[in-house]
Amino acid sequence: MAKPFQFAKFDKKNNYLKKPLILVSNDDSIYSKGILVLVETLKTFAEVVVVAPDSHQSGKGHAITLGSPLRVSSNKRFGPETEAYDCNGTPADCIKIGKHLKLKGRSIDLVVSGINHGSNASVSVIYSGTMAAALEGAIEHFPAIGFSLCDFSPNADFSHVPEFIIEICKNVLEKGLPKGVALNVNFPAKSEQKPKGIKVCRQSASYYKEMFDERQDPYKKSYYWLDGNFVKSDMAEGTDEWALENNYVSIVPCKFDLTDYAAIDELRGNF
Amino acid sequence: MAKPFQFAKFDKKNNYLKKPLILVSNDDSIYSKGILVLVETLKTFAEVVVVAPDSHQSGKGHAITLGSPLRVSSNKRFGPETEAYDCNGTPADCIKIGKHLKLKGRSIDLVVSGINHGSNASVSVIYSGTMAAALEGAIEHFPAIGFSLCDFSPNADFSHVPEFIIEICKNVLEKGLPKGVALNVNFPAKSEQKPKGIKVCRQSASYYKEMFDERQDPYKKSYYWLDGNFVKSDMAEGTDEWALENNYVSIVPCKFDLTDYAAIDELRGNF
Repeated sequence: MAKPFQFAKFDKKNNYLKKPLILVSNDDSIYSKGILVLVETLKTFAEVVVVAPDSHQSGKGHAITLGSPLRVSSNKRFGPETEAYDCNGTPADCIKIGKHLKLKGRSIDLVVSGINHGSNASVSVIYSGTMAAALEGAIEHFPAIGFSLCDFSPNADFSHVPEFIIEICKNVLEKGLPKGVALNVNFPAKSEQKPKGIKVCRQSASYYKEMFDERQDPYKKSYYWLDGNFVKSDMAEGTDEWALENNYVSIVPCKFDLTDYAAIDELRGNF
Repeated sequence: MAKPFQFAKFDKKNNYLKKPLILVSNDDSIYSKGILVLVETLKTFAEVVVVAPDSHQSGKGHAITLGSPLRVSSNKRFGPETEAYDCNGTPADCIKIGKHLKLKGRSIDLVVSGINHGSNASVSVIYSGTMAAALEGAIEHFPAIGFSLCDFSPNADFSHVPEFIIEICKNVLEKGLPKGVALNVNFPAKSEQKPKGIKVCRQSASYYKEMFDERQDPYKKSYYWLDGNFVKSDMAEGTDEWALENNYVSIVPCKFDLTDYAAIDELRGNF
Protein backbone atom coordinates (compact mmCIF):
# COMPACT_ATOMS: atom_id res chain seq x y z
CA MET A 1 0.00 0.00 0.00
CA ALA A 2 1.16 3.51 -0.74
CA LYS A 3 1.65 5.58 2.37
CA PRO A 4 -1.72 7.00 3.44
CA PHE A 5 -2.12 10.65 4.32
CA GLN A 6 -0.26 11.20 7.58
CA PHE A 7 -2.39 13.76 9.34
CA ALA A 8 -5.83 12.65 8.39
CA LYS A 9 -7.46 13.01 11.74
CA PHE A 10 -11.11 13.94 11.86
CA ASP A 11 -12.85 16.14 14.37
CA LYS A 12 -16.38 15.42 15.58
CA LYS A 13 -17.90 17.00 12.50
CA ASN A 14 -15.91 14.65 10.23
CA ASN A 15 -13.58 17.41 9.04
CA TYR A 16 -9.80 17.03 8.72
CA LEU A 17 -7.87 18.69 11.57
CA LYS A 18 -5.07 19.39 9.11
CA LYS A 19 -6.06 19.70 5.50
CA PRO A 20 -4.46 17.33 3.00
CA LEU A 21 -2.67 18.88 0.00
CA ILE A 22 -4.06 17.79 -3.37
CA LEU A 23 -2.33 18.44 -6.71
CA VAL A 24 -4.96 18.83 -9.45
CA SER A 25 -4.68 18.64 -13.23
CA ASN A 26 -6.81 17.63 -16.23
CA ASP A 27 -6.69 17.43 -20.02
CA ASP A 28 -9.61 19.68 -21.03
CA SER A 29 -7.54 22.75 -20.00
CA ILE A 30 -7.57 24.92 -16.91
CA TYR A 31 -10.54 26.83 -18.42
CA SER A 32 -12.94 23.87 -18.58
CA LYS A 33 -15.99 23.46 -16.38
CA GLY A 34 -14.94 20.01 -15.13
CA ILE A 35 -11.79 21.20 -13.37
CA LEU A 36 -13.70 24.11 -11.81
CA VAL A 37 -16.25 21.70 -10.30
CA LEU A 38 -13.42 19.44 -9.12
CA VAL A 39 -11.46 22.24 -7.45
CA GLU A 40 -14.55 23.69 -5.75
CA THR A 41 -15.42 20.21 -4.46
CA LEU A 42 -11.91 19.44 -3.18
CA LYS A 43 -11.60 22.83 -1.48
CA THR A 44 -14.40 21.82 0.91
CA PHE A 45 -11.97 19.50 2.73
CA ALA A 46 -8.48 20.00 1.27
CA GLU A 47 -5.83 22.51 0.27
CA VAL A 48 -5.62 22.50 -3.51
CA VAL A 49 -2.82 23.39 -5.91
CA VAL A 50 -3.65 23.31 -9.62
CA VAL A 51 -1.21 22.83 -12.51
CA ALA A 52 -3.27 22.33 -15.65
CA PRO A 53 -2.79 22.72 -19.42
CA ASP A 54 -3.43 26.13 -20.96
CA SER A 55 -5.15 24.50 -23.94
CA HIS A 56 -7.17 21.38 -24.81
CA GLN A 57 -5.09 18.20 -24.45
CA SER A 58 -7.72 15.52 -25.01
CA GLY A 59 -6.41 12.34 -26.58
CA LYS A 60 -2.82 13.23 -25.74
CA GLY A 61 -2.30 9.92 -23.94
CA HIS A 62 0.89 9.81 -21.89
CA ALA A 63 2.72 12.32 -24.09
CA ILE A 64 5.48 14.37 -22.46
CA THR A 65 7.32 17.39 -23.84
CA LEU A 66 10.93 16.59 -24.74
CA GLY A 67 11.88 18.86 -27.64
CA SER A 68 10.78 22.22 -26.28
CA PRO A 69 10.71 23.88 -22.87
CA LEU A 70 7.68 24.29 -20.62
CA ARG A 71 6.18 27.62 -19.58
CA VAL A 72 4.26 27.94 -16.32
CA SER A 73 2.16 30.97 -15.31
CA SER A 74 0.21 31.82 -12.20
CA ASN A 75 -3.53 31.69 -12.93
CA LYS A 76 -6.37 33.14 -10.85
CA ARG A 77 -9.15 31.11 -12.48
CA PHE A 78 -10.08 29.55 -9.13
CA GLY A 79 -10.05 32.75 -7.10
CA PRO A 80 -7.33 34.81 -5.41
CA GLU A 81 -6.87 32.30 -2.56
CA THR A 82 -6.22 29.21 -4.68
CA GLU A 83 -2.70 28.53 -5.93
CA ALA A 84 -3.01 27.64 -9.59
CA TYR A 85 -0.77 27.56 -12.65
CA ASP A 86 -1.41 27.06 -16.32
CA CYS A 87 1.22 25.22 -18.35
CA ASN A 88 1.85 24.90 -22.09
CA GLY A 89 2.58 21.16 -21.74
CA THR A 90 0.63 17.94 -21.58
CA PRO A 91 -1.28 16.58 -18.56
CA ALA A 92 1.68 14.30 -17.67
CA ASP A 93 4.00 17.34 -17.91
CA CYS A 94 1.72 19.21 -15.49
CA ILE A 95 2.14 16.55 -12.81
CA LYS A 96 5.91 16.48 -13.30
CA ILE A 97 6.22 20.25 -13.08
CA GLY A 98 3.78 20.33 -10.15
CA LYS A 99 6.08 17.99 -8.25
CA HIS A 100 9.11 20.08 -9.27
CA LEU A 101 7.64 23.36 -8.04
CA LYS A 102 7.80 21.67 -4.65
CA LEU A 103 4.71 23.50 -3.55
CA LYS A 104 6.70 25.60 -1.10
CA GLY A 105 8.12 22.61 0.70
CA ARG A 106 4.78 20.99 1.36
CA SER A 107 4.31 17.33 0.49
CA ILE A 108 1.61 16.20 -1.90
CA ASP A 109 -0.93 13.84 -0.30
CA LEU A 110 -2.98 13.05 -3.38
CA VAL A 111 -2.96 13.67 -7.14
CA VAL A 112 -6.39 14.18 -8.73
CA SER A 113 -7.16 14.70 -12.43
CA GLY A 114 -10.39 15.76 -14.12
CA ILE A 115 -13.29 15.98 -14.14
CA ASN A 116 -12.99 14.90 -17.76
CA HIS A 117 -15.75 15.88 -20.15
CA GLY A 118 -16.40 12.41 -21.61
CA SER A 119 -15.94 8.78 -20.60
CA ASN A 120 -12.52 7.29 -19.99
CA ALA A 121 -13.87 3.80 -19.40
CA SER A 122 -12.81 0.78 -21.42
CA VAL A 123 -9.98 1.29 -23.95
CA SER A 124 -10.34 5.09 -23.75
CA VAL A 125 -8.02 4.99 -20.74
CA ILE A 126 -5.12 4.43 -23.17
CA TYR A 127 -5.73 7.68 -25.08
CA SER A 128 -6.76 9.77 -22.10
CA GLY A 129 -4.68 12.73 -20.97
CA THR A 130 -6.76 12.83 -17.78
CA MET A 131 -5.73 9.31 -16.85
CA ALA A 132 -2.13 9.95 -17.98
CA ALA A 133 -1.95 12.69 -15.32
CA ALA A 134 -3.28 10.25 -12.72
CA LEU A 135 -0.88 7.49 -13.82
CA GLU A 136 1.99 10.01 -13.75
CA GLY A 137 1.02 10.63 -10.14
CA ALA A 138 1.27 6.87 -9.48
CA ILE A 139 4.67 6.75 -11.25
CA GLU A 140 5.79 9.54 -8.90
CA HIS A 141 4.64 7.41 -5.93
CA PHE A 142 1.56 9.49 -5.03
CA PRO A 143 -1.94 8.07 -4.48
CA ALA A 144 -3.76 9.21 -7.62
CA ILE A 145 -7.28 9.37 -9.05
CA GLY A 146 -8.69 10.38 -12.45
CA PHE A 147 -12.37 11.43 -12.60
CA SER A 148 -14.44 11.46 -15.80
CA LEU A 149 -18.10 12.10 -16.62
CA CYS A 150 -19.86 10.23 -19.44
CA ASP A 151 -20.90 13.49 -21.09
CA PHE A 152 -18.73 15.29 -23.65
CA SER A 153 -20.67 18.57 -23.51
CA PRO A 154 -18.58 21.61 -22.44
CA ASN A 155 -21.55 22.59 -20.26
CA ALA A 156 -22.18 19.11 -18.87
CA ASP A 157 -24.21 18.81 -15.65
CA PHE A 158 -21.83 17.71 -12.87
CA SER A 159 -24.27 18.25 -9.98
CA HIS A 160 -24.51 14.55 -9.05
CA VAL A 161 -20.75 13.91 -8.72
CA PRO A 162 -19.32 16.06 -5.87
CA GLU A 163 -20.57 13.77 -3.11
CA PHE A 164 -18.87 10.77 -4.76
CA ILE A 165 -15.63 12.73 -5.34
CA ILE A 166 -15.50 13.60 -1.64
CA GLU A 167 -16.24 10.01 -0.59
CA ILE A 168 -13.62 8.49 -2.94
CA CYS A 169 -10.87 11.03 -2.17
CA LYS A 170 -11.36 10.77 1.60
CA ASN A 171 -11.35 6.97 1.30
CA VAL A 172 -8.03 7.03 -0.61
CA LEU A 173 -6.48 9.59 1.77
CA GLU A 174 -7.45 7.43 4.75
CA LYS A 175 -6.70 3.96 3.41
CA GLY A 176 -4.07 4.58 0.73
CA LEU A 177 -3.83 2.67 -2.53
CA PRO A 178 -1.86 -0.43 -3.55
CA LYS A 179 1.62 0.49 -4.85
CA GLY A 180 1.67 1.86 -8.39
CA VAL A 181 -2.13 2.09 -8.67
CA ALA A 182 -4.17 5.02 -9.98
CA LEU A 183 -7.95 4.88 -9.89
CA ASN A 184 -9.92 5.41 -13.11
CA VAL A 185 -13.27 6.71 -11.85
CA ASN A 186 -16.14 7.27 -14.31
CA PHE A 187 -19.52 8.82 -13.52
CA PRO A 188 -22.74 8.13 -15.45
CA ALA A 189 -24.14 11.22 -17.19
CA LYS A 190 -26.68 13.14 -15.12
CA SER A 191 -30.12 11.55 -15.22
CA GLU A 192 -33.27 11.58 -13.16
CA GLN A 193 -31.98 8.66 -11.13
CA LYS A 194 -29.13 9.27 -8.72
CA PRO A 195 -26.20 6.84 -9.22
CA LYS A 196 -26.91 3.65 -7.28
CA GLY A 197 -23.46 3.51 -5.71
CA ILE A 198 -19.83 2.62 -6.48
CA LYS A 199 -18.53 -0.53 -8.19
CA VAL A 200 -14.85 -1.56 -8.33
CA CYS A 201 -14.42 -3.00 -11.83
CA ARG A 202 -12.09 -4.31 -14.49
CA GLN A 203 -11.50 -2.43 -17.76
CA SER A 204 -14.05 -3.53 -20.38
CA ALA A 205 -12.64 -4.94 -23.64
CA SER A 206 -15.15 -2.89 -25.64
CA TYR A 207 -13.55 -0.91 -28.47
CA TYR A 208 -13.95 1.79 -31.09
CA LYS A 209 -14.76 0.83 -34.66
CA GLU A 210 -12.94 3.67 -36.33
CA MET A 211 -13.06 5.18 -39.73
CA PHE A 212 -11.57 8.24 -41.38
CA ASP A 213 -13.71 10.86 -43.06
CA GLU A 214 -11.66 11.66 -46.18
CA ARG A 215 -12.19 15.16 -47.61
CA GLN A 216 -10.51 17.32 -50.21
CA ASP A 217 -9.15 20.79 -49.55
CA PRO A 218 -9.68 23.61 -52.09
CA TYR A 219 -6.41 22.54 -53.73
CA LYS A 220 -7.65 18.95 -54.33
CA LYS A 221 -5.43 17.43 -51.67
CA SER A 222 -6.92 14.87 -49.29
CA TYR A 223 -7.15 15.20 -45.55
CA TYR A 224 -8.56 12.78 -43.00
CA TRP A 225 -10.72 13.28 -39.88
CA LEU A 226 -10.67 10.44 -37.36
CA ASP A 227 -14.20 9.30 -36.56
CA GLY A 228 -15.80 6.16 -35.20
CA ASN A 229 -18.37 4.41 -33.09
CA PHE A 230 -17.94 2.75 -29.74
CA VAL A 231 -18.79 -0.95 -29.92
CA LYS A 232 -20.11 -2.34 -26.63
CA SER A 233 -18.64 -5.79 -27.18
CA ASP A 234 -17.80 -6.50 -23.53
CA MET A 235 -20.59 -5.48 -21.15
CA ALA A 236 -20.06 -8.36 -18.70
CA GLU A 237 -20.92 -7.76 -15.06
CA GLY A 238 -17.80 -6.53 -13.31
CA THR A 239 -16.66 -4.32 -16.21
CA ASP A 240 -16.64 -0.54 -16.02
CA GLU A 241 -19.00 -0.36 -19.00
CA TRP A 242 -21.50 -2.63 -17.23
CA ALA A 243 -21.37 -0.47 -14.10
CA LEU A 244 -21.95 2.76 -16.03
CA GLU A 245 -24.77 1.24 -18.10
CA ASN A 246 -26.44 0.27 -14.82
CA ASN A 247 -26.04 3.74 -13.30
CA TYR A 248 -23.16 2.95 -10.94
CA VAL A 249 -19.97 4.97 -10.50
CA SER A 250 -17.15 2.74 -11.85
CA ILE A 251 -13.67 2.50 -10.34
CA VAL A 252 -10.93 0.58 -12.17
CA PRO A 253 -7.56 0.26 -10.39
CA CYS A 254 -4.99 0.94 -13.15
CA LYS A 255 -1.26 0.32 -13.26
CA PHE A 256 1.63 1.40 -15.46
CA ASP A 257 3.33 -2.00 -15.49
CA LEU A 258 2.07 -3.14 -18.91
CA THR A 259 3.51 -6.65 -18.58
CA ASP A 260 1.06 -9.41 -19.50
CA TYR A 261 2.32 -11.84 -16.86
CA ALA A 262 0.10 -14.67 -18.10
CA ALA A 263 1.80 -14.43 -21.50
CA ILE A 264 5.37 -14.73 -20.19
CA ASP A 265 5.39 -18.51 -19.75
CA GLU A 266 3.63 -19.09 -23.04
CA LEU A 267 6.16 -16.95 -24.90
CA ARG A 268 9.12 -18.51 -23.09
CA GLY A 269 8.05 -21.73 -24.79
CA ASN A 270 8.32 -19.98 -28.17
CA PHE A 271 11.71 -18.28 -27.79
CA MET B 1 -3.87 -16.62 -29.51
CA ALA B 2 -4.22 -14.08 -32.33
CA LYS B 3 -4.63 -15.69 -35.70
CA PRO B 4 -1.20 -16.57 -37.04
CA PHE B 5 -0.18 -15.65 -40.57
CA GLN B 6 -2.24 -17.85 -42.87
CA PHE B 7 0.10 -18.55 -45.76
CA ALA B 8 3.36 -18.96 -43.96
CA LYS B 9 4.64 -21.95 -45.83
CA PHE B 10 8.37 -22.28 -46.25
CA ASP B 11 10.24 -23.65 -49.22
CA LYS B 12 13.43 -25.70 -48.83
CA LYS B 13 15.53 -22.57 -48.43
CA ASN B 14 13.37 -21.41 -45.49
CA ASN B 15 11.72 -18.61 -47.50
CA TYR B 16 8.01 -17.84 -47.40
CA LEU B 17 6.14 -19.08 -50.51
CA LYS B 18 3.80 -16.14 -50.13
CA LYS B 19 5.21 -13.09 -48.44
CA PRO B 20 3.48 -11.76 -45.32
CA LEU B 21 2.36 -8.11 -45.35
CA ILE B 22 3.88 -6.00 -42.57
CA LEU B 23 2.70 -2.49 -41.64
CA VAL B 24 5.64 -0.47 -40.31
CA SER B 25 5.75 2.73 -38.27
CA ASN B 26 7.98 4.40 -35.66
CA ASP B 27 8.26 7.58 -33.60
CA ASP B 28 11.63 8.98 -34.69
CA SER B 29 10.10 9.94 -38.07
CA ILE B 30 10.22 8.33 -41.49
CA TYR B 31 13.62 9.96 -42.02
CA SER B 32 15.41 8.20 -39.12
CA LYS B 33 18.07 5.55 -39.53
CA GLY B 34 16.23 3.03 -37.34
CA ILE B 35 13.20 2.69 -39.60
CA LEU B 36 15.45 2.38 -42.64
CA VAL B 37 17.30 -0.56 -41.07
CA LEU B 38 13.97 -2.10 -40.04
CA VAL B 39 12.41 -1.82 -43.50
CA GLU B 40 15.52 -3.17 -45.25
CA THR B 41 15.54 -6.11 -42.82
CA LEU B 42 11.84 -6.91 -43.19
CA LYS B 43 12.00 -6.69 -46.98
CA THR B 44 14.26 -9.75 -47.02
CA PHE B 45 11.25 -11.95 -46.20
CA ALA B 46 8.09 -9.77 -46.31
CA GLU B 47 6.13 -7.23 -48.25
CA VAL B 48 6.34 -3.94 -46.35
CA VAL B 49 4.04 -0.91 -46.25
CA VAL B 50 5.24 2.07 -44.21
CA VAL B 51 3.10 4.79 -42.61
CA ALA B 52 5.36 6.85 -40.38
CA PRO B 53 5.40 10.35 -38.87
CA ASP B 54 6.85 13.19 -40.95
CA SER B 55 8.56 14.63 -37.84
CA HIS B 56 10.00 13.49 -34.54
CA GLN B 57 7.32 12.05 -32.21
CA SER B 58 9.44 10.75 -29.33
CA GLY B 59 7.71 10.85 -25.97
CA LYS B 60 4.29 11.23 -27.57
CA GLY B 61 2.93 8.21 -25.70
CA HIS B 62 -0.42 7.01 -26.97
CA ALA B 63 -1.47 10.45 -28.23
CA ILE B 64 -3.94 10.58 -31.11
CA THR B 65 -4.99 13.56 -33.22
CA LEU B 66 -8.56 14.67 -32.49
CA GLY B 67 -8.72 18.41 -33.07
CA SER B 68 -7.15 18.63 -36.52
CA PRO B 69 -7.15 16.48 -39.64
CA LEU B 70 -4.38 14.16 -40.80
CA ARG B 71 -2.38 14.57 -43.99
CA VAL B 72 -0.81 11.55 -45.69
CA SER B 73 1.70 11.74 -48.56
CA SER B 74 3.43 9.08 -50.65
CA ASN B 75 7.12 8.93 -49.74
CA LYS B 76 9.95 7.30 -51.71
CA ARG B 77 12.44 7.18 -48.84
CA PHE B 78 12.67 3.38 -49.09
CA GLY B 79 13.04 3.17 -52.87
CA PRO B 80 10.60 3.24 -55.78
CA GLU B 81 9.34 -0.31 -55.10
CA THR B 82 8.36 0.16 -51.45
CA GLU B 83 4.92 1.57 -50.65
CA ALA B 84 5.47 4.24 -48.00
CA TYR B 85 3.61 7.26 -46.64
CA ASP B 86 4.54 10.04 -44.31
CA CYS B 87 1.86 11.42 -42.00
CA ASN B 88 1.59 14.59 -39.91
CA GLY B 89 0.12 12.63 -36.98
CA THR B 90 1.38 10.57 -34.07
CA PRO B 91 2.63 6.97 -34.20
CA ALA B 92 -0.80 5.70 -33.04
CA ASP B 93 -2.44 7.80 -35.79
CA CYS B 94 -0.12 6.19 -38.35
CA ILE B 95 -1.35 2.69 -37.46
CA LYS B 96 -4.99 3.81 -37.57
CA ILE B 97 -4.57 5.49 -40.96
CA GLY B 98 -2.50 2.55 -42.23
CA LYS B 99 -5.41 0.24 -41.44
CA HIS B 100 -7.85 2.69 -43.05
CA LEU B 101 -5.92 2.95 -46.30
CA LYS B 102 -6.81 -0.73 -46.57
CA LEU B 103 -3.57 -1.40 -48.36
CA LYS B 104 -5.37 -2.12 -51.62
CA GLY B 105 -7.53 -4.86 -50.16
CA ARG B 106 -4.64 -6.83 -48.70
CA SER B 107 -4.78 -7.93 -45.07
CA ILE B 108 -2.10 -6.94 -42.59
CA ASP B 109 -0.27 -9.92 -41.09
CA LEU B 110 1.92 -8.05 -38.63
CA VAL B 111 2.44 -4.52 -37.27
CA VAL B 112 6.06 -3.58 -36.52
CA SER B 113 7.32 -0.32 -35.02
CA GLY B 114 10.88 1.00 -34.70
CA ILE B 115 13.72 0.58 -34.56
CA ASN B 116 13.63 3.23 -31.86
CA HIS B 117 16.79 5.21 -31.17
CA GLY B 118 16.93 4.68 -27.40
CA SER B 119 15.66 2.18 -24.85
CA ASN B 120 11.97 1.59 -24.26
CA ALA B 121 12.56 -0.84 -21.41
CA SER B 122 11.14 -0.34 -17.91
CA VAL B 123 8.77 2.62 -17.41
CA SER B 124 9.84 4.21 -20.73
CA VAL B 125 7.22 2.01 -22.41
CA ILE B 126 4.56 4.38 -21.04
CA TYR B 127 5.99 7.46 -22.80
CA SER B 128 7.06 5.71 -25.98
CA GLY B 129 5.48 6.54 -29.32
CA THR B 130 7.18 3.47 -30.77
CA MET B 131 5.39 1.18 -28.32
CA ALA B 132 2.12 3.15 -28.72
CA ALA B 133 2.19 2.22 -32.42
CA ALA B 134 2.72 -1.44 -31.50
CA LEU B 135 -0.03 -1.35 -28.85
CA GLU B 136 -2.35 0.35 -31.34
CA GLY B 137 -1.69 -2.64 -33.60
CA ALA B 138 -2.73 -4.94 -30.74
CA ILE B 139 -5.87 -2.83 -30.12
CA GLU B 140 -6.69 -3.29 -33.82
CA HIS B 141 -6.31 -7.08 -33.36
CA PHE B 142 -3.01 -7.46 -35.24
CA PRO B 143 0.05 -9.28 -33.92
CA ALA B 144 2.41 -6.40 -33.12
CA ILE B 145 6.03 -5.77 -32.13
CA GLY B 146 7.99 -2.66 -31.14
CA PHE B 147 11.80 -2.74 -31.55
CA SER B 148 14.17 -0.38 -29.73
CA LEU B 149 17.95 -0.07 -29.45
CA CYS B 150 19.62 1.11 -26.23
CA ASP B 151 21.47 3.88 -28.09
CA PHE B 152 19.98 7.35 -28.58
CA SER B 153 22.49 8.42 -31.25
CA PRO B 154 20.92 9.35 -34.63
CA ASN B 155 23.76 7.38 -36.25
CA ALA B 156 23.54 4.40 -33.87
CA ASP B 157 25.09 1.11 -35.01
CA PHE B 158 22.25 -1.33 -35.72
CA SER B 159 24.40 -4.02 -37.36
CA HIS B 160 23.81 -6.65 -34.63
CA VAL B 161 20.00 -6.49 -34.66
CA PRO B 162 18.69 -7.64 -38.11
CA GLU B 163 19.18 -11.34 -37.39
CA PHE B 164 17.11 -11.02 -34.19
CA ILE B 165 14.41 -8.98 -35.93
CA ILE B 166 14.02 -11.70 -38.56
CA GLU B 167 13.93 -14.46 -35.93
CA ILE B 168 11.36 -12.66 -33.74
CA CYS B 169 9.08 -11.57 -36.61
CA LYS B 170 9.08 -15.02 -38.22
CA ASN B 171 8.38 -16.58 -34.83
CA VAL B 172 5.37 -14.28 -34.29
CA LEU B 173 4.08 -14.79 -37.85
CA GLU B 174 4.27 -18.57 -37.40
CA LYS B 175 3.03 -18.93 -33.83
CA GLY B 176 0.89 -15.82 -33.30
CA LEU B 177 0.64 -13.90 -30.05
CA PRO B 178 -1.78 -14.11 -27.11
CA LYS B 179 -4.83 -11.89 -27.64
CA GLY B 180 -4.21 -8.19 -27.03
CA VAL B 181 -0.44 -8.57 -26.65
CA ALA B 182 2.27 -6.44 -28.30
CA LEU B 183 5.92 -7.33 -27.77
CA ASN B 184 8.29 -4.69 -26.40
CA VAL B 185 11.68 -5.79 -27.77
CA ASN B 186 14.86 -3.98 -26.70
CA PHE B 187 18.36 -4.58 -28.04
CA PRO B 188 21.56 -3.87 -26.12
CA ALA B 189 23.73 -1.17 -27.73
CA LYS B 190 26.33 -2.52 -30.14
CA SER B 191 29.40 -3.84 -28.34
CA GLU B 192 32.26 -6.20 -29.05
CA GLN B 193 30.21 -9.10 -27.71
CA LYS B 194 27.28 -10.30 -29.79
CA PRO B 195 24.01 -10.50 -27.76
CA LYS B 196 23.87 -13.83 -25.92
CA GLY B 197 20.29 -14.56 -26.98
CA ILE B 198 16.67 -13.63 -26.24
CA LYS B 199 14.98 -13.42 -22.82
CA VAL B 200 11.22 -13.08 -22.28
CA CYS B 201 10.92 -10.68 -19.33
CA ARG B 202 8.70 -8.57 -17.14
CA GLN B 203 8.84 -4.75 -17.16
CA SER B 204 11.41 -3.53 -14.62
CA ALA B 205 10.13 -1.14 -11.93
CA SER B 206 13.19 1.09 -12.39
CA TYR B 207 12.32 4.75 -12.85
CA TYR B 208 13.53 8.21 -13.81
CA LYS B 209 14.55 10.67 -11.12
CA GLU B 210 13.49 13.80 -12.90
CA MET B 211 14.28 17.43 -12.48
CA PHE B 212 13.61 20.59 -14.44
CA ASP B 213 16.39 22.85 -15.60
CA GLU B 214 14.91 26.31 -14.96
CA ARG B 215 16.26 29.09 -17.19
CA GLN B 216 15.33 32.69 -17.93
CA ASP B 217 14.61 34.04 -21.38
CA PRO B 218 15.94 37.46 -22.49
CA TYR B 219 12.75 39.00 -21.08
CA LYS B 220 13.36 37.54 -17.58
CA LYS B 221 10.57 34.98 -17.85
CA SER B 222 11.26 31.44 -16.66
CA TYR B 223 11.11 28.33 -18.81
CA TYR B 224 11.74 24.72 -17.84
CA TRP B 225 13.57 21.86 -19.60
CA LEU B 226 12.69 18.35 -18.45
CA ASP B 227 15.83 16.44 -17.48
CA GLY B 228 16.61 13.46 -15.31
CA ASN B 229 18.57 10.32 -14.58
CA PHE B 230 17.46 6.73 -14.89
CA VAL B 231 17.59 4.97 -11.52
CA LYS B 232 18.25 1.23 -11.83
CA SER B 233 16.21 0.35 -8.76
CA ASP B 234 14.85 -2.97 -10.06
CA MET B 235 17.50 -5.06 -11.85
CA ALA B 236 16.15 -8.43 -10.66
CA GLU B 237 16.70 -11.45 -12.91
CA GLY B 238 13.68 -11.74 -15.18
CA THR B 239 13.33 -7.99 -15.76
CA ASP B 240 14.02 -6.34 -19.09
CA GLU B 241 16.69 -4.15 -17.48
CA TRP B 242 18.50 -7.24 -16.15
CA ALA B 243 18.41 -8.87 -19.59
CA LEU B 244 19.83 -5.78 -21.31
CA GLU B 245 22.53 -5.28 -18.66
CA ASN B 246 23.59 -8.87 -19.27
CA ASN B 247 23.70 -8.43 -23.07
CA TYR B 248 20.48 -10.28 -23.89
CA VAL B 249 17.71 -9.10 -26.20
CA SER B 250 14.69 -8.45 -23.93
CA ILE B 251 11.08 -9.20 -24.89
CA VAL B 252 8.24 -8.00 -22.62
CA PRO B 253 4.69 -9.04 -23.61
CA CYS B 254 2.63 -5.85 -23.10
CA LYS B 255 -1.12 -5.32 -22.94
CA PHE B 256 -3.46 -2.35 -23.08
CA ASP B 257 -5.78 -3.62 -20.35
CA LEU B 258 -4.39 -1.49 -17.51
CA THR B 259 -6.52 -3.16 -14.80
CA ASP B 260 -4.55 -4.16 -11.72
CA TYR B 261 -6.56 -7.34 -11.12
CA ALA B 262 -4.78 -8.06 -7.83
CA ALA B 263 -6.02 -4.69 -6.49
CA ILE B 264 -9.70 -5.28 -7.31
CA ASP B 265 -10.50 -7.48 -4.30
CA GLU B 266 -8.53 -5.24 -1.95
CA LEU B 267 -10.39 -2.14 -3.12
CA ARG B 268 -13.77 -3.87 -3.02
CA GLY B 269 -13.16 -4.15 0.71
CA ASN B 270 -12.70 -0.36 0.86
CA PHE B 271 -15.73 0.78 -1.15
